Order: sequence, then C-alpha cells, then structure tokens
Amino acid sequence: MGKAIGVFDSGVGGLTVVKELIRQLPAEDIIYFGDTARVPYGIKSKETVIRFSIENILFLLKQEVKLICIACNTVSSVALPIIQNHFKVPMVGVLESGVREAVYATRNKRIGVIGTRGTIKSRAYEIQIKQLDPQVKVTAAACPLFVPFVEEGWLSGRPVLEVAQSYLKPIKKAGVDTVILGCTHYPLLKPVIREVLGKKVTLIDSAKQVAMEVKNILAQEGLLNKGRRGKQRFYVSDNPEWFSGLAKRFLGRPVRGKKSGAE
Amino acid sequence: MGKAIGVFDSGVGGLTVVKELIRQLPAEDIIYFGDTARVPYGIKSKETVIRFSIENILFLLKQEVKLICIACNTVSSVALPIIQNHFKVPMVGVLESGVREAVYATRNKRIGVIGTRGTIKSRAYEIQIKQLDPQVKVTAAACPLFVPFVEEGWLSGRPVLEVAQSYLKPIKKAGVDTVILGCTHYPLLKPVIREVLGKKVTLIDSAKQVAMEVKNILAQEGLLNKGRRGKQRFYVSDNPEWFSGLAKRFLGRPVRGKKSGAE
Repeated sequence: MGKAIGVFDSGVGGLTVVKELIRQLPAEDIIYFGDTARVPYGIKSKETVIRFSIENILFLLKQEVKLICIACNTVSSVALPIIQNHFKVPMVGVLESGVREAVYATRNKRIGVIGTRGTIKSRAYEIQIKQLDPQVKVTAAACPLFVPFVEEGWLSGRPVLEVAQSYLKPIKKAGVDTVILGCTHYPLLKPVIREVLGKKVTLIDSAKQVAMEVKNILAQEGLLNKGRRGKQRFYVSDNPEWFSGLAKRFLGRPVRGKKSGAE
Repeated sequence: MGKAIGVFDSGVGGLTVVKELIRQLPAEDIIYFGDTARVPYGIKSKETVIRFSIENILFLLKQEVKLICIACNTVSSVALPIIQNHFKVPMVGVLESGVREAVYATRNKRIGVIGTRGTIKSRAYEIQIKQLDPQVKVTAAACPLFVPFVEEGWLSGRPVLEVAQSYLKPIKKAGVDTVILGCTHYPLLKPVIREVLGKKVTLIDSAKQVAMEVKNILAQEGLLNKGRRGKQRFYVSDNPEWFSGLAKRFLGRPVRGKKSGAE
C-alpha cells in the first residue's frame, strides 16, 4: 500500500474536494485535516493564515502523506505561493484549476470571482487570470456571510437569497458570463447563486479540476494506487461532532471526525 | 497609578462592556484583548474554549492587571466556572449580572435566553436562573448567525429580520416577558430583536450590570482609581485593521487595535 493523499481546509468546506478525489481516485487513501478550532480563515490576516497553514501541513506530514491538496481557497490564495517552496512534498491548491477552466469557458472575456474577504483581498485570482489571458476583465466580490449560512444549513430561503442579491450586484452589473466559486463552501449555494445570476452564467466549481490535477501529478511521479479500495481518515482540531454533522452535507455521506490532538 | 482592569473577548463584542466600564469607571485604565486570530468561540468545544481562555488570561496577567473581566458570554458560560478557581486575580463574567437583572425584571416568571451555540449548549444561564428562582421557566435559543451579521454590519434589513424571526420563534411562543441578550454582540441587534418580540418584552443587556459589579469588587478590595482620567489599550491576536474598523460600531468611537504577538 502506498502513502495517502493529505487534504486540509480551515474546517469542513474541503470535503467538497474530498468527494471528487474519492470519485476520481477510488484506490487512494485520503487523510483529511479540518482546523475547526480556528475556523474560519477567510476573515483573518495573511500572516495568521500562513502560520496556521504551516502547522496543518506539519500535521499531515507526520502522517507521511505523498501529496498535499490544499482544499481551501483562502489558503491557496494567501499562503500557498509563499509556503510551497519550503516543502518537498508536492502541493496542489484550488486556484489554478478554477482559473484555467474559467478562462476556457468564458466567451465574452468577463469573469466574476466570489470568495472570502481574505481570498478577494489577495487578488490572487485576478492575477492568475490576467497571466493566462490579459484581455479578460475580472470583477471580484467578497461574500463573507456565505460560509456561516452554509455551515448553519441556510442553503435556500429569502435571507440567503437577499444577501446573495446584495453581494452579487457588482458581478451581475459587469455582465460576466462565467463566475468562479472561489470558496469550497459555495458549491452548496449553487441554486441560490444561479437564481440571482441567471442560467446563462457558467458557475465554475474547481473540485473536479483539482482532483484531475492531483491524479496527473501522482501519475507523473509514479505514485498512483491501483486495484484496491482506498480508505479515508478525517481529523479535526476541535468539535468532531459538529464536523461529523456537517460532513454529510458536503460529502454526501456521513463520516466520523477524530480529534487530532495536534494543532 | 494603580494597575489596569483586564478585559478579554473572542473578538470585538466585548467592547460593548468596555464602553460601560469607561462610563462608570472613568478613572480606570483598561487593557483589552480580543482573540481575533481564533474568533469565533461560540461554535467551538468546551475544551477548546477553556484552553484559549487560559491563554488569554495569561496574556492579561503579563500586563499586571488587577481584575479580569470576561466580556464574552461563551467563555463566561463554558469556561469561567472551571478556570476561576485556578487564579488569584478576581474575575468577573457576564452571566451573573444578566441573570440577576432578568430574575428581578420578570413579572410572569418566564425568561428567554439567546446566545451562541456554546452558551446555549452549556445551559449555564438556565442553571443560574433556577438557582436564583426555581419557579422561573426558561426558554433558550441559539442564534449562531447573529454574530456574523453584526460583524458584517447587517444590523437591519430583511435578511437579518427573517433570520431573527426564525431563531426567536420558540422564545415568542413561550410568552416570555424578559429576554437575556446572552452575547456581547447582540445589543447591536436590539432594534431587530425588539421588532420580532414586540415592545412589551424587556431586553436585558448585561454590560451595565457587569460594570457595576467590577466597581463593587474594586471598591471592596480598595483598588479603585480616583481623580484622574483612565487610558485604554487594545490588543488583538490578529487583524488590527479589521478590529479597529469594527470597534467604532461597538464602542461608539474609533480605537486602534495593536497586534499582541502573543496568543
């Protein structure tokens, strides 16, 4: 048996990526870490997100993972560019895949990006999109209440719809035809976002592309598992019951979170 | 000059208590610590809240404070009963004062309590109310989205009103005449809560009573400052700009948060 794939997120959102990893790489073992003691990251400073991320990576390295997938857009935007050079283990963030798919999908060269305050403030999406196609016009909007709405189970109804209408006003006004869901929680709000933006706008959820990228890297390095059924282990820094309760919403099936003891 | 009063909270909510301390004790120096790197506490486990609280207390003790005011209902409910015996410094939480005032105010012996998940789950309010008057019927409701709404500046409007209607349904149904605002953020939502519950319900905001209790203790111990104008210092574990931006909303005037370097 080979080593596992390590995945981490500030909390529970990264499970949307795990779901796709299990689908595309059923023979792989996955070790997930959710930093539920310090969630959310989206409102915190760059320095703090970097410090927390390094601690999470060290926890996963102790479990001897062969690759680390950063299933958190805030960390991928704010910390990954700085920390990835310090570690030998291959790391995959969630930004690049979403950017590639969005630039490919847009017809009118207008892309919207939504995410946490930290992600939007970093301008990481905008910078990567411009690198790939300088002609694309990017409109970004922070949606800080979306994460609490999702975590509290308000996935539909008027309150979340009206907050979405308010947040998405600049995106709508800009006439974009493609919107990147720049936070692993947001796929759960797709119906609401679609209701606000209309059916013609393509919503890019990077989980699928991220899992494909993980597969490519493992194949290149000769590290792919085959002909077996992978196992998953889920660690959290706090509140395993809360995590387990929410996990079903993200993963489509119940899992048990285990307290990590490290943080 | 005497030592300062130490105040801590998970973030910015405790400033509603600081405001009242400044009003009632203008000669006192105040050192505030907001744990903005790990905010919010309300969704976290008892063990984690205890651990974070001890770290915050140790930070304040390094500043040589003469009393510690725990301006956070989650900490006061979950951690204070366990940690207060371990320290020599006098500690004042925000529960007792609110409970005393509510039991005094109720005519029909029906009290509602609203707070974070952590506060409500601890049942600390219910237990203290029953100790003071076993005949009171208590109805409690967790309002987990109120803190993000306040911190994002959604203090009025339909989304927060509809969420409040949903959360407060059991409180309204129980026919209470008194409701304890069991979270230092909630005073900012008074107009919304009043709109849902009606004008006849008394809303108890413990800040005023807490400041009176602090004053009493300092007087008893002969530690009161007099005849001077106190100063305040504000420390945060992260994001001083975010803190300073929000502080105005809570304190009624702008302040500058300073990174603590400790956590």
